[in-house]
Amino acid sequence: MSAAFHVAVDVGGTHIRAALFPDDEPRILRRAKSDTPRSSRPDDILEAILRTIRQVMPAEENSLSGVALGAPGPLDPFEGVVISAPNIPSWRNVPLRQWLADRLPCPVQIGNDANLAALGEWQFGAGQGASDLVYLTISTGIGGGVIADGRLLLGRRGLAAELGHITVLPDGPQCSCGQRGHLEALASGPAIAREARRSLSDLSRPSLLRDLSGGDSSQITAQMIAQAALAGDELAQQLIATAGRHIGQALASILCVFNPSTIILGGGVSQAGPLLFDPVRETTIALAMSPSYLEDLRIAPAALGDDVGLFGAYALSVGLASQPVPTSSPTSPAKPRGDPHAHPDLQGSRPQGR
Amino acid sequence: MSAAFHVAVDVGGTHIRAALFPDDEPRILRRAKSDTPRSSRPDDILEAILRTIRQVMPAEENSLSGVALGAPGPLDPFEGVVISAPNIPSWRNVPLRQWLADRLPCPVQIGNDANLAALGEWQFGAGQGASDLVYLTISTGIGGGVIADGRLLLGRRGLAAELGHITVLPDGPQCSCGQRGHLEALASGPAIAREARRSLSDLSRPSLLRDLSGGDSSQITAQMIAQAALAGDELAQQLIATAGRHIGQALASILCVFNPSTIILGGGVSQAGPLLFDPVRETTIALAMSPSYLEDLRIAPAALGDDVGLFGAYALSVGLASQPVPTSSPTSPAKPRGDPHAHPDLQGSRPQGR
Repeated sequence: MSAAFHVAVDVGGTHIRAALFPDDEPRILRRAKSDTPRSSRPDDILEAILRTIRQVMPAEENSLSGVALGAPGPLDPFEGVVISAPNIPSWRNVPLRQWLADRLPCPVQIGNDANLAALGEWQFGAGQGASDLVYLTISTGIGGGVIADGRLLLGRRGLAAELGHITVLPDGPQCSCGQRGHLEALASGPAIAREARRSLSDLSRPSLLRDLSGGDSSQITAQMIAQAALAGDELAQQLIATAGRHIGQALASILCVFNPSTIILGGGVSQAGPLLFDPVRETTIALAMSPSYLEDLRIAPAALGDDVGLFGAYALSVGLASQPVPTSSPTSPAKPRGDPHAHPDLQGSRPQGR
Repeated sequence: MSAAFHVAVDVGGTHIRAALFPDDEPRILRRAKSDTPRSSRPDDILEAILRTIRQVMPAEENSLSGVALGAPGPLDPFEGVVISAPNIPSWRNVPLRQWLADRLPCPVQIGNDANLAALGEWQFGAGQGASDLVYLTISTGIGGGVIADGRLLLGRRGLAAELGHITVLPDGPQCSCGQRGHLEALASGPAIAREARRSLSDLSRPSLLRDLSGGDSSQITAQMIAQAALAGDELAQQLIATAGRHIGQALASILCVFNPSTIILGGGVSQAGPLLFDPVRETTIALAMSPSYLEDLRIAPAALGDDVGLFGAYALSVGLASQPVPTSSPTSPAKPRGDPHAHPDLQGSRPQGR
C-alpha cells in the first residue's frame, strides 16, 4: 500500500501558502509560499494557486487523496464558489473548486478561512476535545468559526459564523460591510487604530503612540498599539481594554446562542495577551445571562499561529469537519492510510500547540 | 405486529398537556390537560405530569415506544434535568427524566420548550424542508430554537438558542434574567406593555388603550395592545412596530451567525400579523450584512398554534431531532411502525399548518 497525501492551501490577500500532509497525521511535510498576484484577472490568481499547489505535490500524483483550500470572505462551500473576497477585489463568484478539480487528480474542497481556522484549532490546537467551540480571529477584520454539537457550522449556503458582524452597538461606527456598530467596527485592528487617532487628536494627552508613529497618527496600527500597551502606555492599554469589553459583550450573546465549552481568540490583536483577555473574560462573565453558561467555560488563546489555516484545510480534506460536503462525505474521522515515514526526506513539523 | 405509540407532553407554568400519537405520523389520537399545581413541593408537579400522561397512555403499556416532554427554562437534555423553570419556582435541578423513567415502561426524553417548538415547526409546520431554521416565540418571554445543518442545536449542556437573551441595546431596559437590553427586555409582551404604560403617562396622548384597560395602565397586556393596534390605534401600532424593529435588529445578527433559509415567529405577540412582521422584515433587510443572507430567506409566522409543543415533543420522541440523545439515538427519521387505523375509536387531529 503506497502512502497517501493531502495538500492544504491558505489563500490570503497577500500570500498563497500550501503544505503537504500525510493522510494520517497533522504533520507538514513540505511547504510553499507565493505572492497573491495583484491582478484584475481572476484567472491569474487561480493559476498562482495551482502553481503553489504543484510545488508541494507528491511526485506520484495518484498518491494525492485530496486538496482543500481556505479562502477569505463569503464563499459557498457546497457549490465551491467564492462569492467575494475582501482582499482580492477581482474575485466575484469565482468557481474555485471546479477550476482546480478540472486540473487536479483528486477531490477538492474549499472553506471560509475563519471556519477552517476554527476547525484546525478544534482538531489540533487549543480546542481539542470540545464538542462546542467558538473561534474568533481578531485582525484586520473579525472572522468567526463555530463547532456546534461536534460539527463545523455552515448554514444554508455556508455563510454562517460571521461573528464579526454581530451588532454590538446600534448606530456605532461604520463597519467594513457598510452596516454600523458591528463587533468588527469596534474591536478589529483598524477599529482600535481609529480610536487611537481620535484620542491623540487631543494634543494634551500623552502617549508613546506619538513616538511610535513618528508623530503621524495616520500611521498607527493595531500592532503599534499592542506594543505601546505592553510597554505600559496608559492610552494604548485603555484602547485594548475597550476592544476587549466589546468582544466580551458579543461573547455574552454568543454564549446563550451556542452554549460552548471553549472560546478561542486568535489573530494579531489577540497577541496583546492579558491586556485583551482580562477585559474579555471580565465582561463575558459580568454579562452572561446565567452562571450555567460559565461552568467549565474556557476562553483561551489560539495555539496554531500562522499555520492554523493550513491545519484547518488539512482537517477539511481528511473529513474531520463531520459535515457532508459535495466531493466526499466521510462522517467519521479519517482512518490512517499508508506510512508517511516512507518519505524520510520530508521534514515534518507538528502544530505548535500540541 | 401491534401498533406503537408515543406520548408527548407540554409542561407549562399554568397547564400540563399530554397527547397520544401513533408511531408513524404526527396525528393526535387522544389528549389530556391538567392544571400545573401551585405547590412548593417539586414532586407534586412531577406527580401531576405522571397522572396526565397516564390519562392518554394506551391500555397496553408495551405498545408505548417513548415519552417526550417539553419544559420551560434552562434544562439539560443530556442529563434530563430541569435546571430552573421561570414559571415553576419550586423546580431547581429537578431530575425530570429519571423520575419519569422510573415510573414508565419506555424511554423518556426532555427538551427545552422553545427548542421543541422549533423542532415541531421544522418537521410538521412552517419550516418543513428547511435545513437551517431559526424559531422565535415572542410571548411573556422570548424563547428560541435553531435547526443548524439539519439538526436541533443544543450546545454543551443543551442551553443553546436562548435567542431572547441576545443583547440588542447595551444599557437598555432590564431583562427578566437580570441583564440589560436583551431582545426579551425590548420586544416581549411585558416589554411592550411597559412601553405602553410609559407612553400613556403622557396624558395628552390619545389611545384606545386607556379604554381597553379601564383607565388603569397597570392592566395593559400585549394582547390588549395587539387588539388596539388592529383597531387602528396609532400608539399601539407604534409600540408593536418598535418591538418589530428590535426583533429585526436581532435577526440581522442571527442571519450572519446561522445563515438560515427560514425564520419562524410564533407566540402571542406574533398574532399582531403584518403590524409586527412588516417592521421585522424591513429592519432585517435593512441591517443584513450582505444581500447573500437574504436570497430566498423566508420570515414566516408559526403554523402549529398551541399544539406546537406537543408536535415538537413527538418529533423528539420518534428521533427526528437528528441528534444523539441519551435514551435513544436514531439519526434518521423514524420509520413507520404499526397501523394507527387499527384504533378506529381514536379521533385523530393533524397539525393545523399542514
